[in-house]
Amino acid sequence: MTRLELFENIKKKKSFLCVGLDTDITKIPQHLLKTEDPIFEFNKQIIDATKDYCVSYKPNMAFYETQGAKGWISLEKTIQYINQTCPDIFTIADAKRGDIGNTSKMYAKAFLENLNFDSITVAPYMGEDSVKPFMEYKNKWVILLALTSNEGSKDFQVLETNSPFTKGARGIPLFEDVLTKSKSWSTPDNMMYVVGATKAEMLSDIRKIVPDSFLLVPGVGAQGGSLSEVAKHGMNKQCGLLVNSSRGIIYASSGENFAEKAREEAMKLQKEMEVLLSDHLK
Amino acid sequence: MTRLELFENIKKKKSFLCVGLDTDITKIPQHLLKTEDPIFEFNKQIIDATKDYCVSYKPNMAFYETQGAKGWISLEKTIQYINQTCPDIFTIADAKRGDIGNTSKMYAKAFLENLNFDSITVAPYMGEDSVKPFMEYKNKWVILLALTSNEGSKDFQVLETNSPFTKGARGIPLFEDVLTKSKSWSTPDNMMYVVGATKAEMLSDIRKIVPDSFLLVPGVGAQGGSLSEVAKHGMNKQCGLLVNSSRGIIYASSGENFAEKAREEAMKLQKEMEVLLSDHLK
Repeated sequence: MTRLELFENIKKKKSFLCVGLDTDITKIPQHLLKTEDPIFEFNKQIIDATKDYCVSYKPNMAFYETQGAKGWISLEKTIQYINQTCPDIFTIADAKRGDIGNTSKMYAKAFLENLNFDSITVAPYMGEDSVKPFMEYKNKWVILLALTSNEGSKDFQVLETNSPFTKGARGIPLFEDVLTKSKSWSTPDNMMYVVGATKAEMLSDIRKIVPDSFLLVPGVGAQGGSLSEVAKHGMNKQCGLLVNSSRGIIYASSGENFAEKAREEAMKLQKEMEVLLSDHLK
Repeated sequence: MTRLELFENIKKKKSFLCVGLDTDITKIPQHLLKTEDPIFEFNKQIIDATKDYCVSYKPNMAFYETQGAKGWISLEKTIQYINQTCPDIFTIADAKRGDIGNTSKMYAKAFLENLNFDSITVAPYMGEDSVKPFMEYKNKWVILLALTSNEGSKDFQVLETNSPFTKGARGIPLFEDVLTKSKSWSTPDNMMYVVGATKAEMLSDIRKIVPDSFLLVPGVGAQGGSLSEVAKHGMNKQCGLLVNSSRGIIYASSGENFAEKAREEAMKLQKEMEVLLSDHLK
């Protein structure tokens, strides 16, 4: 999918919502456990219920790998189902991979070619040659971790560094260096960034470095409240935002009405997003 | 496996060799492609041929994931085969994972519990809470990326940072901060580090920070020559080193004699290691 196609979908659906398919077998409704493939069955119903309100799905690989080969089959069926029933949806393999070039190439083949995801999340620690193999597929995307939303993001991501991009005596935080350096290997048409929304005002600084890039923002929704702040500081002329909600949507109910409740939660966020889009994209 | 058990195995086998099972379906001998599970068949024969000369096996997950669910089954059979036929071998899931705590927990279950690996490689970018869930298994290990051997290691890992551990005006490189900080979350009995051997003398500085920890050293073997330098700068009283060779061993021959040639290459390295162990562990 191209950046323009993604933006067109956002305008059409009046939504920049990404639904995280972090499907945990211990959390899905009891009645599904009797089906042949409970994880796929759950995902299928969630997708049917929410696809009109979101522009992206993001299964996190850990939840599938913990089920072994069976989990991998549930994942294959899920991505096939999305690609067949709603091909305008932008798919993200939330895998946070990254290895030496030769090995990253194998991961790229696994996720972008074999499973046919539109994009994959990648960890930057091993540098340029660990990221590049993921950018060799036309109209596919790397979503590079920059500033994550967890507590541990404070351990290394915000350390000031003596990067060549440093201005003056004060260094720039590591995550800004990740943004700046990776810009020289990529374009806003093949790279996006994971940027946590714990401090929405940081998005303004990030926008100075990557004005045109899409940002994948986790940690909004279940935690609530900051969506308008994220839009205020992070939205650009082509929206430039995918805001993820996982548990808040997919586990909105643990009963037989889980899909209906998921739809309601997705719709609520879509309605908020519709207002924000119309405010900011005038 | 405990640190002492690993050291006992090293002394018994006079080897600190780790064999990387980076099994690529396009590189294994033709005649194996007719078997039901070529990747497992290749691994099985490599394991049978080399198990007396190494103390560790390290399958890299990318090579299995690129084969989808089938690859996951090859991986399951491989780890089961190792655990059954040579339970004294230290097994490493080379996965380079790392995600928010909740999700890392799922990866930990997948690799350390379900597949029953002794250890997993983990990327540090997301900090403490992304690493900790992997340390909740008794006598299992995190092998944290510190300084990798690829070109991209220069992009971020060696940047000087204003870490709280910085002494004087000059910052410490990011990888040293990873070592220092992670020491406060772990012990040398549940954490090792990936340290590239491209500049063996850097191992001396690393040893000042983590004197007792095991180091997993990639990039020796096929590239050749620096094993004695690695031992000189990196070995501690309990050896403290696992030196990996992948392609140099498993692809020593592409013919029907591949296992025999792999055994010869493994034996060559073991013989070198035997001399180094006897020199350094007097």
